[in-house]
Amino acid sequence: MIKARVTVTLKNGVLDPQGKAIEGALSSLGFDGVGHVRQGKVFDIELDGADKAKAESDIKAMCEKLLANTVIENYTVAID
Amino acid sequence: MIKARVTVTLKNGVLDPQGKAIEGALSSLGFDGVGHVRQGKVFDIELDGADKAKAESDIKAMCEKLLANTVIENYTVAID
Repeated sequence: MIKARVTVTLKNGVLDPQGKAIEGALSSLGFDGVGHVRQGKVFDIELDGADKAKAESDIKAMCEKLLANTVIENYTVAID
Repeated sequence: MIKARVTVTLKNGVLDPQGKAIEGALSSLGFDGVGHVRQGKVFDIELDGADKAKAESDIKAMCEKLLANTVIENYTVAID
């Protein structure tokens, strides 16, 4: 069993209204000195097998096909 | 300027319908051997100042108040 964590974040320059809303909310709550906030997604995936190289290439394929919109998002894969 | 990454994940035992949907979608796309999938959130936050200890305690307060629902979610803070 291999555990992997995929982190998907918006590319630079892509507007992030959710992040902007969080900035506003943190400021309303009295937190000073907060700069930009960007929100992304994380996926914890369990894969059968023990071949980490295969797992990594499978997960990259999953990202390209389903987990990330590569027009506007970057992804990183970390294998445990 | 301090950059921090907050990762918010569902606690064990909390149902994750979004993760279940992703499992089903990956299987439909022909990816075999996919076990559990859990989805979480990630926040990239910029903070003014250079005091990492203060930044970490501020960010933990933000998590408790806004970014995470600590009844059902865990969070981790990583300071760059």
